Amino acid sequence: MRSVSIVGIGQSPVGELWNRSARQIAADAISAAMADARIENADALYVGNMLSGTLLEQEHLATLIADYCGLTGIEAAKIEAACASGSAALRTGIMAIASGFHDCVIVAGVEKMTDTVGKDTTAGLATAADAEYEAMHGVSFVALNALLMQRYMYEFDLPLDAFAGFSINAHKNGANNPNAMFQEAITRNDYVRAPLIATPINMMDSSPVCDGAAAVILVPSEHAHRYTTGNHRGAVRILASASATDTIAVHSRRDPLFLQAAETSSQKAFAQAGIQRSDLDFFEVHDAFTIMTALSLEATGFAKRGEGWRLAQDELIGIRGELPISTMGGLKSRGHPVGATGVYQIVESVLQLTGTAGANQVANAHIGMAQNIGGSGATILTHILGT
Amino acid sequence: MRSVSIVGIGQSPVGELWNRSARQIAADAISAAMADARIENADALYVGNMLSGTLLEQEHLATLIADYCGLTGIEAAKIEAACASGSAALRTGIMAIASGFHDCVIVAGVEKMTDTVGKDTTAGLATAADAEYEAMHGVSFVALNALLMQRYMYEFDLPLDAFAGFSINAHKNGANNPNAMFQEAITRNDYVRAPLIATPINMMDSSPVCDGAAAVILVPSEHAHRYTTGNHRGAVRILASASATDTIAVHSRRDPLFLQAAETSSQKAFAQAGIQRSDLDFFEVHDAFTIMTALSLEATGFAKRGEGWRLAQDELIGIRGELPISTMGGLKSRGHPVGATGVYQIVESVLQLTGTAGANQVANAHIGMAQNIGGSGATILTHILGT
Repeated sequence: MRSVSIVGIGQSPVGELWNRSARQIAADAISAAMADARIENADALYVGNMLSGTLLEQEHLATLIADYCGLTGIEAAKIEAACASGSAALRTGIMAIASGFHDCVIVAGVEKMTDTVGKDTTAGLATAADAEYEAMHGVSFVALNALLMQRYMYEFDLPLDAFAGFSINAHKNGANNPNAMFQEAITRNDYVRAPLIATPINMMDSSPVCDGAAAVILVPSEHAHRYTTGNHRGAVRILASASATDTIAVHSRRDPLFLQAAETSSQKAFAQAGIQRSDLDFFEVHDAFTIMTALSLEATGFAKRGEGWRLAQDELIGIRGELPISTMGGLKSRGHPVGATGVYQIVESVLQLTGTAGANQVANAHIGMAQNIGGSGATILTHILGT
Repeated sequence: MRSVSIVGIGQSPVGELWNRSARQIAADAISAAMADARIENADALYVGNMLSGTLLEQEHLATLIADYCGLTGIEAAKIEAACASGSAALRTGIMAIASGFHDCVIVAGVEKMTDTVGKDTTAGLATAADAEYEAMHGVSFVALNALLMQRYMYEFDLPLDAFAGFSINAHKNGANNPNAMFQEAITRNDYVRAPLIATPINMMDSSPVCDGAAAVILVPSEHAHRYTTGNHRGAVRILASASATDTIAVHSRRDPLFLQAAETSSQKAFAQAGIQRSDLDFFEVHDAFTIMTALSLEATGFAKRGEGWRLAQDELIGIRGELPISTMGGLKSRGHPVGATGVYQIVESVLQLTGTAGANQVANAHIGMAQNIGGSGATILTHILGT
């Protein structure tokens, strides 16, 4: 298997981009990534996206974007795995290079969730759950996470503000990310006074509905030097790529509070990379809701069951903490354009590993991990990157 | 790159399967393929599907199906490339084995297009076109193909029944396929008297709206013998896998009557397989509309521009003809459950290559090609299989 490296990254700002269509937002990220890698063409484009059919009445999205970007003719396909679509597209791109089918691949994630005339974004997001056994009964995606958070607080006897530190950390980091949707720090008081969305989830526990796109350029590691001469930031190597699933419906799980797919995919990834958990310099978690952060940290082995919330402290997860998480704001503050999120995590990991993360630079960052979750833990991909 | 072989196939009947949901239809095909390969688990499931979000309010489809099939835990992702989704999923599976990431992969294609309460299948199919520049103006998918057929008839001065032979051949072959939606031969008179759908496309030019699923099991060719002992039909090798795109909108093409992506992907495939066009023993074409059959035969090099329709004769394309096409009924008679079609073509090719195609067996079939088209020629994948 050929080793795969990232030699270019690009991202659009995240937000309510009412004056940009999905294809335009994707093109913003792709053209930035192509300029970063100094390429004018590629062999293939894999696009992570969840909701273009449901919200935009547009399937065939990858070919549409290739065409709009002036890449007409190259292979193109869209990959969908709910909110894990971005990392699933990345994994397809990795396989395309690793197999030898291609020598230069663009992976993009894009989602357009706002300004979708006549379409219900909440109903769209519920398509990540089981349509016949969950969504049909009126359970929205926030509601599913609220049930998990309620159960967690009940089992471990916790107050609501046990989760505050995750949100405060995300917003503190997002304040320094020029592409983040929310570039403003919050206080514990802001968290406590935030309106409830679906009890016990409040506005500060939840990532926002937004638009955005991110892209990376993949090449065989043995070719990376061709792209990184001069003042380029340098290449980053994919050390591991792993994917695992769980039951789609939360009610089918033996223990709804344990993310089995996070454990499986992270263990596979550690084995592929040949590293220990303790070797990681940072961890881009899928903090779509604060409860997901706690559950991810537990399943990935950073905390015992019921103790993930204890890590929600600046000295542990802050930029200068033991294991920085959500270093550019995470899903909470940078934003969560669902199919793009997995690629944003990779773009931000590359910034950290190449010393170009600006004010949020993690010192001596050599190995980082990104974990992207689809649905309420049903699909989880873990990637480990290193220099 | 590791060589990849198919060691199991499965398919559901194609039709209006009102008593089966998408996950059930997919499970029918997957369990048949797993039984055929005599396996009880796999490393990954890649699902080709176009319309689950639009028509069924269900994304996250691959994980849902893995879960429903008792494969909970394995990697799963959905691949979308409009009507070429099935072969795009196949290609992902091939890359997963070729790269060495996996040793046993299930590729399934599934579509549920009928009995979708409150959803418009015609509007769903139009999401394969450009939503903002084609579909928004009311152009349905049939209408786009009608414009192409009209132009072709005008440029080459043809009567409507020039295309009849393609439909007659498909129905003749479908009559012997127990899984075909239409198992009845038609006459030239049936064709001529068929009602018009979108002038000049009549009911016999057009493939039907239907439900169905097909699946194949992929393994490294060097492991194939482990699965094919005893009375198994034997393995079939993937000799080539190639994908190419064109402009998404028909109006953007230099020549709307030339399928550039068919030429590109078939040329790539011939080079990969190291064969000539004349080495092919049969060709599974994407006969969603008879005009597409003519254009595919031209772009793939079997006829000159404007002369593809001349091949619509039994002695040329029939089972005992020079180059049999649509050997089990094609999209026209077997049916066209869009995201599943690319996998049906592969399943039927395996039947031919292993001498298990029954009454429609092509004599001495050693090398076959399948071509799957997304949109009006915007995404085209070509696979070549051999024994």
